[in-house]
This record gives sequence, structure tokens and C-alpha cells, in this order.
Amino acid sequence: MAANARNFGRLAMNQATVPRWTAPQAIDGCARAGYRAVGLWRDRVQECGISVAARVARNAQMTISSLCRGGWFCAPDAAARLARLEDNKRAIEEAAELSAATLVLVCGPAASKDLGAGRSEVHDAIANLTEKARECGVTLGIEPMHPLYCADRSVVVTLAQALDMARSVDWSGEVVGLVLDSYHLWWDPSLDVGITEAAQRILAVQLADWLAPLPDALNGRGMLGDGSIDLRRFRELTESAGYSGAIEVEIFNPDVWALDPIETLEVVAQRYAAHVE
Amino acid sequence: MAANARNFGRLAMNQATVPRWTAPQAIDGCARAGYRAVGLWRDRVQECGISVAARVARNAQMTISSLCRGGWFCAPDAAARLARLEDNKRAIEEAAELSAATLVLVCGPAASKDLGAGRSEVHDAIANLTEKARECGVTLGIEPMHPLYCADRSVVVTLAQALDMARSVDWSGEVVGLVLDSYHLWWDPSLDVGITEAAQRILAVQLADWLAPLPDALNGRGMLGDGSIDLRRFRELTESAGYSGAIEVEIFNPDVWALDPIETLEVVAQRYAAHVE
Repeated sequence: MAANARNFGRLAMNQATVPRWTAPQAIDGCARAGYRAVGLWRDRVQECGISVAARVARNAQMTISSLCRGGWFCAPDAAARLARLEDNKRAIEEAAELSAATLVLVCGPAASKDLGAGRSEVHDAIANLTEKARECGVTLGIEPMHPLYCADRSVVVTLAQALDMARSVDWSGEVVGLVLDSYHLWWDPSLDVGITEAAQRILAVQLADWLAPLPDALNGRGMLGDGSIDLRRFRELTESAGYSGAIEVEIFNPDVWALDPIETLEVVAQRYAAHVE
Repeated sequence: MAANARNFGRLAMNQATVPRWTAPQAIDGCARAGYRAVGLWRDRVQECGISVAARVARNAQMTISSLCRGGWFCAPDAAARLARLEDNKRAIEEAAELSAATLVLVCGPAASKDLGAGRSEVHDAIANLTEKARECGVTLGIEPMHPLYCADRSVVVTLAQALDMARSVDWSGEVVGLVLDSYHLWWDPSLDVGITEAAQRILAVQLADWLAPLPDALNGRGMLGDGSIDLRRFRELTESAGYSGAIEVEIFNPDVWALDPIETLEVVAQRYAAHVE
């Protein structure tokens, strides 16, 4: 295909940036625009069926750079926690069927005000999943999230904490690693040393910019270059640590979602060239 | 005065929680309600004049538990940085005239995307101010702020980072310390060890709860008990570290501001008794 003459290399698109597209549309649309990898979301993949999404990706020679999202482990009682573990095992199977590079884990929120208890539950749940993940050939990506989300998304809020947890549940480093998103991590005074230490544990890298003041707690992420983050430096840090995989752009923002997805893919590629590469 | 029979002990009010009152009204209103200390803001004190506020506080036997805010050190050029240093020296003099327990420093934001440079500027500015503060008998309180504010308020975003900076600029611990606010710090996996290490450096403690999802980036702080923070544990941690001073309630929230300030003082005292004491 003529359009396929373009190849954006490591630049990848997360489906959440172009939610007007179904999963097959996102895979094909990104491929046609010159992207070589796309991050998918479970709910959107389930709309079309896993096998359909997997076939569309194979036909388009597209890599699935991540599958969002496992996790949400904490619950007030054992039965609910068990149900969530079972759901995560299904997510691992889905990631395997899609040959996704990693299953992204949302590590929380806690079931009470006791963050320590929530963190223990997350730790134990991931430890419980490692055997299944190893059997399926799937890696589990702990995503440290911005402390902004400590109450309603993730009790894992720093890179150092995520790395400690990954090492504790899987010393080999073969199954459990990290997902590094600029939006979640950019503020951390220990970012440089954290990324260096993460090294081979880095399973995925995602980018969004930080807008100030934050327009919305959930859907206020910025287009590359519109915000406060030195995104080029963030990419360089991950590269210096040895990461050479896909770099997904994941932007939750109604202004971005209002664009035609084809235009979004163009804007992202231009901004990536100007602010990241 | 009959109303003065009540004494809320360490519970203190920050003026920002009752912005409908002038500084003299806040000092007198809090005293009448049973508070023994109040945190003031420079702009509101300047409205009535420093000497007036100081006299009203003396007459009401009220302690000024903090003066907000110095800081805002970073600037794109040396002349602007110097002007900000001069303004901070005036703030130190104002804090001295008010016999304020500490001058709260907002440590940022950076003048560019280079957070490391911003952090160096903050460090050097505080170092520059220590002599003046010592002469005036004023302590400088570095306030680590929630990473939410890294772009537009403070490049100091963790307790560990703030403590490192305080130690670096003032090894004696006599002049530079920390202001610990539950809203800014509650998410930190290193909170317990951080507060323990802060120990005698803790100059002020402030409380607000965390609402999720955050209703507003700047003015979305929660009334005590309305949110996700274990506030009692936060207080206990500071006490275990040796802090026995005022505990200010500082809530930026239009729903709170809509109340009659006298009602706010009552609600805060009730919530403090139920969720903090």
C-alpha cells in the first residue's frame, strides 16, 4: 500500500487517544498512517472479539505494544478479591492471544484508607499471577501512576515503589516489569536514577504532556508539546536504560478526542518529531 | 469572655479556610470560637497592615502558627530572581513582626522544563535567606507540595526531597524546616519514614482531606473526614516524630468558603474531634 511507505519507527499509538475508532479500525488506521504498533484496551477488544482483533493485527503486521488493563486487585472481601484475580487471568489469556508485549496493571485503589494494606494486596495479587503469566508467555507491567490517582486508581505511585514490587514478586525479571508513562512520572526527583535502575524491567513507555493547571483530573492530559514535560529527555532516559521498544502516545483529553482520528495520528506524529525524537 | 471558655488546644485555623474574613476578623473570630492559633496570609495581612494584625493577635492572645507565603524563587533572569529574594526578605520581616511560628515557602515553579535547574535555584535561594531569617528569629518552612503542583507551584514534591534540601541549606536545623500538609503528602509510600526522619525539623502541620476524583486542581481540597486520607494516623505520625505544635486546617474549596465562617469553625472543630483527635 502506498500509504505504508511511511514508517514512524518506534512511535506507537494507544487506542485511548483515538476512542472513536473500534479496535480493528484503530489497528488498520494506525497501520495505514505509518504506525507499526498500537496499544489496545480490553473493553474495546472484547467489542469485536479477541480473535478478530488478533487477526486484523496480524494481517496489518501491527505489533500490539500493550493491552490495558489488568489490575484493580483490592476489594473488601476475599471472594471479591478472588473474582478479580480470575478476571486478571482472563486478561493474561487475552494478552497472549493478541501477542501483546505486556499486560498493563492498574495497581489499586485500596479498599480502605489503609494504603499499606492496599499495597500488600496488590503485591500478593501480582505474585499470585506470575505463574499464569509465565505459562502464557505474557509479561505483567506494573504502571506507577501519578499520586493524583492514589485514591481512585493506584496505590503504586512512584517508580521506585513499582520497581521494588516487581523485584519482590519476580526476582528473575522475566515476567514482571514496569510501564513508564511521562504523565505519571515526570515530577519525581528520583526519576533519573529510577529509570536507570528499572533498565531491563521497562516493558512499555507511554507519553502524554502535563497541562497546568490541570483541566480535569481524569481527562486532562496534554498533547505532546502543549505542557510542562521535557519529553525528549524522558525518552532519552529510557533509551539510556536500554529500552528500545515502542513509545505509545496515550492522551485522555476531550479536545483530542474531538478531532478526526486520522488528523490525531498526523498531529501526534508531527509533535513527536518536534518534541520527542 | 464566656465563649473563650472553649479551648480547642492544638487545633488551629488557616485563614485560607475562611477567606470572607479579614485578617483581624479571622484572628478575633477564631479566638472567640475557641481556637488558640491561626495561620495568616501575607496579602490579607497587608490589607490591614502588619502592625494592626500583630496587635489584634496579641490582644486576643492568639498565636500566629504560620505566615503564607514566601518562595516563588525561580525566574528566567537574575534581576527577577533578585527581586524575588528581596520580597522574601520582606516576608521574613513581616513574619518576625507577627511572631509567626514559621514562614511557609512555596518552592517553585521552575522557570523552564528543566526541573533540576529549578530545584537548584530553589536550594540556592533558601540558602541565601537563612542569614536574614536567623537575624530576625524566623524559621523558614519548606512545604513539599503534591506532585499535582509540580508545574505551577512547587518543584519540591516529596518529604524526602524537602528534608534533603533543609539539611543542605541549614545543617543546624535551627532556621530551615518543613511544613507537612496531609493533602500534599498522604500518597507517599515513604511517608512514615519521612516524618520520622523529619523529627525536629517539623515546623508546622496542616490538614485537608483528599477528594476523589479531584473536583478542582487548585480549589478541590476536602473537609476533614470527607475524603480518602487517614488523618488520625497522619497526626499520630507527626506526634511520634516529636511534633507538638499547632495543627492548622487549610481547605481551599468553594463549598467550604460558601459557609458562614463561624459555621466553618464549628464544623472543622467537630470533624477534627471525630477524624483527627
